[in-house]
Amino acid sequence: MERAIDLEIQKLKERILLMGGYVEKAIEEATQALIDREPERFEKVHEYETIINRSHIEVDEACLRLLARQSPLAADLRLIVAVIKINTDLERMGDQAVNISHNGKRYLERPPLKPLIDLPRMSQEVRVMVRAALDAFVKRDSVMAADVLQRDDSVDALKHHIFQELIAYMGKDPTTIEQALNLILIARNLERLGDHATNIAEDVIFAVTGKDVRHGAHNPSRRVAKPSGKAKT
Amino acid sequence: MERAIDLEIQKLKERILLMGGYVEKAIEEATQALIDREPERFEKVHEYETIINRSHIEVDEACLRLLARQSPLAADLRLIVAVIKINTDLERMGDQAVNISHNGKRYLERPPLKPLIDLPRMSQEVRVMVRAALDAFVKRDSVMAADVLQRDDSVDALKHHIFQELIAYMGKDPTTIEQALNLILIARNLERLGDHATNIAEDVIFAVTGKDVRHGAHNPSRRVAKPSGKAKT
Repeated sequence: MERAIDLEIQKLKERILLMGGYVEKAIEEATQALIDREPERFEKVHEYETIINRSHIEVDEACLRLLARQSPLAADLRLIVAVIKINTDLERMGDQAVNISHNGKRYLERPPLKPLIDLPRMSQEVRVMVRAALDAFVKRDSVMAADVLQRDDSVDALKHHIFQELIAYMGKDPTTIEQALNLILIARNLERLGDHATNIAEDVIFAVTGKDVRHGAHNPSRRVAKPSGKAKT
Repeated sequence: MERAIDLEIQKLKERILLMGGYVEKAIEEATQALIDREPERFEKVHEYETIINRSHIEVDEACLRLLARQSPLAADLRLIVAVIKINTDLERMGDQAVNISHNGKRYLERPPLKPLIDLPRMSQEVRVMVRAALDAFVKRDSVMAADVLQRDDSVDALKHHIFQELIAYMGKDPTTIEQALNLILIARNLERLGDHATNIAEDVIFAVTGKDVRHGAHNPSRRVAKPSGKAKT
């Protein structure tokens, strides 16, 4: 028999998926505006962020209503708490896409640095992480979620490489300092987007298995070299 | 009559306060190690982060237990959901303190740039925000929380000023690029700490008043010039 709470949880999942879709679009549009040097397209990122913010408030309200009226237990309760957290991460991802727009606008005010280096690839990787984390959430698939944690390492490696190249650029030609700095900040924004996707994946694993994989509580070896998924620069 | 849930909520508040105290200490130690050029003191920041991470997991577990066993309603429910969010912000603040340590260590590997400019002041401001946000939480004081939102503007202004000065430094003397970049990233870390304190203050206002002040839902004028408290660089 279908329980009322199942229907509500299904609706919550659909909202989160939709919101995640807008996050992906916001990241893609911000990156593409930068690649194509079309600053007017950053406006679209703000529009997506407004939608994400509205959804953020609605999902929070829906979770509070569910907790108050249905008194969910065990797996349902874990899932709703995970949604509250995933919702927060998605909202902050919208902020980061807007941050890319701000830095991107400043970058486009000056002549281009020749390469965007690995930034487009980094953006692509991050979007794959977001999509995979939310797929894992909807399918309650903790193995798929664990794969997202691995992918974050390659995003971090890309960021490190971008930093090195841009610092070398600045040193060779000080007139490039401001442009290079804007790209460094964009690489940092993308890295943070990857961190948020990682947070979502960790919340999915907790919601599905009841196991807490944060802070090496589940698999200490993963976190030894890197005390926290977010602590890097 | 004292309800069982009141005692549990009191315990939760004490844990959050304790955790916030460690966050303050971590920020202070990271900044002071930088000012005094004593890199070995960054180790202490990692120790604080380990304590914060342990607390993060315990608070989450306590919240889930409370939600499952006590089926809290209305104000209690809003407060517990706020604790889940505040807990996440405090944990990420620990990460940011570690990020300051990483950037600080790299900074201290080279000769100093003459001034640390406004970084010590920015760190001080951020710690005041953390303390005020958590005081507001414990006292259920939404006016005090609203004051934190205002303070964030001065932190952002400090960051902007620091960025401008450091970019000028880099331009005048390209041998300072790496040191200046490390300080720029530290200013960015401090700005993010201010954003997290702002998030906490917003959650306090919601928990106390039931009003959502995020995304200009409560007072649109505050957010017009700045689409989101976190979207800046």
